[in-house]
Order: sequence, then C-alpha cells, then structure tokens
Amino acid sequence: MSSFADRLMQAVDRTAPCVVGLDPVLEYIPDEFLRECGLSRCGPLEEQARALEAYCLATIEAVHDLVPAVKPQAAYFERYGSFGMQALERCIEAARAHELQVILDVKRGDIGSTSTAYARAYLDREPVRPWEVDCITLTPYLGEDSLEPFVDVAHDNGKGLFVCVRTSNPGADVVQLPRVEDGRHVFEVTADLVKGFNDRQLGERGYGSIGAVVGATQAEAAGSLRKRLPGVLFLVPGWGAQGGKLATVLACFDEKGEGAVVNSARAIMYPHRFGGSEAAPGRDAIRGAAQRFVDEVGAAVRNR
Amino acid sequence: MSSFADRLMQAVDRTAPCVVGLDPVLEYIPDEFLRECGLSRCGPLEEQARALEAYCLATIEAVHDLVPAVKPQAAYFERYGSFGMQALERCIEAARAHELQVILDVKRGDIGSTSTAYARAYLDREPVRPWEVDCITLTPYLGEDSLEPFVDVAHDNGKGLFVCVRTSNPGADVVQLPRVEDGRHVFEVTADLVKGFNDRQLGERGYGSIGAVVGATQAEAAGSLRKRLPGVLFLVPGWGAQGGKLATVLACFDEKGEGAVVNSARAIMYPHRFGGSEAAPGRDAIRGAAQRFVDEVGAAVRNR
Repeated sequence: MSSFADRLMQAVDRTAPCVVGLDPVLEYIPDEFLRECGLSRCGPLEEQARALEAYCLATIEAVHDLVPAVKPQAAYFERYGSFGMQALERCIEAARAHELQVILDVKRGDIGSTSTAYARAYLDREPVRPWEVDCITLTPYLGEDSLEPFVDVAHDNGKGLFVCVRTSNPGADVVQLPRVEDGRHVFEVTADLVKGFNDRQLGERGYGSIGAVVGATQAEAAGSLRKRLPGVLFLVPGWGAQGGKLATVLACFDEKGEGAVVNSARAIMYPHRFGGSEAAPGRDAIRGAAQRFVDEVGAAVRNR
Repeated sequence: MSSFADRLMQAVDRTAPCVVGLDPVLEYIPDEFLRECGLSRCGPLEEQARALEAYCLATIEAVHDLVPAVKPQAAYFERYGSFGMQALERCIEAARAHELQVILDVKRGDIGSTSTAYARAYLDREPVRPWEVDCITLTPYLGEDSLEPFVDVAHDNGKGLFVCVRTSNPGADVVQLPRVEDGRHVFEVTADLVKGFNDRQLGERGYGSIGAVVGATQAEAAGSLRKRLPGVLFLVPGWGAQGGKLATVLACFDEKGEGAVVNSARAIMYPHRFGGSEAAPGRDAIRGAAQRFVDEVGAAVRNR
C-alpha cells in the first residue's frame, strides 16, 4: 500500500505542485454554462446542487491532466444537504477516476470515538463507497488525542491529513500567534504536534502523510515552519483571490523544491470573475487559468 | 423573532437543563430493535443508515417531552455519506416537529466565505429545508474572523452557536491550557472571543446565543469560566459515559441555576451498554435512562 505522501509527490513530479480547489458557488457559475446544462439558478435545491456538480465535473475535466490533486471544500456542498452530499460524491468519483488525489477540505476535529467516526467516514478503504478520499483537513483546537484517531486511520489506510497550523486569514492571529510559557507561538505548539504524528511513518521521499496547512499570506511563519517541520508536507491555500505572495509560497518548499502544494480555487473555477481573464467564461477559460497557475508556480519553484 | 437563548431557556423551564445527544452507532443498536424494524447490521450502507435513523427516531420519540433539546453528532451520520445525511435530515425534522431545539454538533470552523457557507447551510431560515437547525457547534482555532460570519448569520436568524472553549478530553490541554503573554490560558483567549460576540445581542433573560462548550471533566475551568462569561450559555458534554463529575457540572450554572445545559448521549441511547441499566434494551430503557438523567441533574441544580 502506497502512502498518501508518496502518491501525491509522484503526481506532483508528473504535473506541478498545484491543487485546484473545488468551491462551487451558484452565483459565480456563468449563465451560459447553466443554459447549456438546462439548469436554472432559481430551481429547487436539488437542481441547484446538480448545477454545482455539473460545474465541478467540468472543472475536473478541464484540469485533470495539469494538476496532481483537487480539493473540494465541503461547506459549499453541505449548503445543499443530502443533495449536496450526492453532488460531492459524484465529484469525488470523477476525480478519482482521473487518478487525481482528492483532498477533502472538511476541517473536522472532535474527540475520541467521534474523531474515529469522521476518520472512518472519509479515509477507510472499506467498504467501497463514493465519498472515500485520499486526504482530509483538520483543525487542532481539541488537542493531541483529538488528532490521534485520525492519524491512526490515515496511516492504516495509506491516507493523509493536513492539519491547520497557520491559516491565511488575518483574524487567525488572536488564537495562533500568542506565545506560550516555553516561548513557542500557539501555531508552533500545533506544528510540533503535527510533526510528532508525521514522523511515525515517513515515505520513500522522506515525507510523511500528516501535513500542515500554512497560508500563503503568512510571510513570517512560512520559512520558519519549513525549517521546523522537515518531512511535513504543506498545503498552502491563499494563492490568487486571497492575495498570497509568491515569496511566501516559495518559502514553503524545501531546498529541492519539494514538500508543498499550493491551492487555488476561485481564480481557476471562475476566471471570468476572479482570474483577470479576458476569455469567455467556460471550460477553455478554466483550463487556461489552471495552465497559468501551474506555469507560474512551476517556474517560480524551479527558478527560486 | 425569538433568540436561540430565549427559546432554549424557556424549554429548559418546562423540562430540565439536559440535552440528549444523538450518536448513532450501528454496533450498539440492540439486535431486538433491528429485527423489529426488519433491518440488518450487515446490509448495504443505505440500509445501515436507515437503521441509524430508525434508532434515532425511536430515541427522539422516547425522550421528546423530557428534555428541551437534542444534539445530533454529525460524524456518525457522515460515515454513511449522502445516505447518512438523509437520515440526519429526517431526525432533524422529527425533533423540530416535537418542538425540540436541535443543536447540531458539527464542530465546523473555516475562514471568510467558507464560514458563511457553513453558517447558511445550517442556520439560515430560508429556503425551507430539512437540515435547518437551531444551533451548531464550532471550533475556534482559525480565530476571530472565522467565527464572525457564523455569529452574523446566527444573530440574523435567531439561531445559536456553541464554540469549543474547554473540551472534555484529556489531550485538550496541550493546546487549550498553555498561558499566553498576558497571563490568560489559550482557552481564556477563546472564551473572551466568545463573550465579545455573545454580548452583541442578549436575550430577555440576560443570556446571549453565542455559547461555549465546557467539558464536564474540566473541574478547575468550569467555575472560573462561569465567572468570566456572565450571559454566555454553556453546553456541557461529558456527563455519563465520559465520567464528568457532578460538582463540575454544577459549577457551570449561575447562581439562579441557569445558563447551562448538560449533554448525555451514550448512557441514554444505549443504557443496556453504557447506562448501567438492568432493563431490556429498547424504548422503555431509553426513556428510563433519560428520566434518570433529567431527575439527577434537575435535583442537583435545584439543591446545590
């Protein structure tokens, strides 16, 4: 059984250290696309969920050979209840059929048996079910024993986790930035927890499957966390619409240009609104935006 | 439009400061119950989800006039994907039809527009949909602006939040207990965030709808948090199976015996396994366990 870290790094070798986020938002889907699908923005919730699904499937189709992974954001599917969950399941199936790694962005975190239930929900390899993914995201506020059941299930099933360590939003500072008695920032406390779990199983390339979320806006933290967490993969959101800086993104990579993947969602899915694209909205514009993302990040990592 | 805090406190007046957690776990459902429903533990996932649903509906039926609220734990439904989500929706509908407050335990937490999407998913009053609830739980690691969108949607819709402040699990200490530069424990930093949001809208009884999760195992924190957070409702998990102490639970209430609700899940749903009940498994045993829970907590709060 291969590890998540090894699968992701091999897929990055073939493509780029770039992840396309799937953040389906009805308001942003082009009118032309909806008309083409015979779907309306004002239909019942079930129809709206089908529109999200169709647009995510079109995005997956447009980018599948350019990137190693997609990252569906659960919130946008949960808005549509079980209809949304069905849409999410079909997107996961489509992505996996294209051999994309699927990082489901759920930011779960709970205690004991509840953490085990979440972990089994998404990461168990059995029973076969359409919502199985390769990796999920977590938040660490509930502490060490809240993460442990996720780590156990991930390791047993060749799956991965990305734990929020230093997030991209400005309001994160109030919880993540204070220094505790031993001089560490709170985010360094959680970073060290992640490292402890990650180091239990390192893959062929020296990286483990218990990674950290480090925002592309966190210029100071990125470099220091990269040094603090050798062997820990970074998921770097905040590129594009959130204004992450290239230098910060580059600081998340190791000296070989490995160990991080950068996420972009809105700028890829909705280049007509967020990507500065002049092209007509639609699949070609999505592919064009993904190509620019991959080229830009790829060139920067190679030439840094 | 009434506030969540006012609705919950009025319902507590009629019943008791007790919440029944809905943690459906297939292994714990009595064989007799499954036979009666014609369902099998080994069927396809869709059938397993129907068994969870049937058992939760039986639990709601057995306890609905004894308690003010139920707290479904999302993890146990998410294990069954969209089948589980459908089961959850039907449980929420049944609970609301009985005029129970529904506190959906999802422990979400994300940034900006994603937080808004989660908040709207569960707390918006429109459009009418079966997964609308009265209150959800959150984790605060992503900081102030991660909570704000939830607070706005909750306040606009007469809904509530319980933010994890000091959780009941032993491993929580590593993140929640350290002291930061100004002398506060990390859990006091998040407690103060909650208070700031809560105080924006106080209800008729002096309590707001942005509450805190304070574990029944946290003896030291309970009393100090009660003093620190006047007007903040506490959701107190950890009674029963997790071994929370009565004194700690009582410290979560104010001098009038108000301001907190205590949760018990397994000891109520599965008294044949976790409740020390001698009764045959089934609806009567569930009601008996709920009655004992309500009597014990109610008497303790009155006589403290």
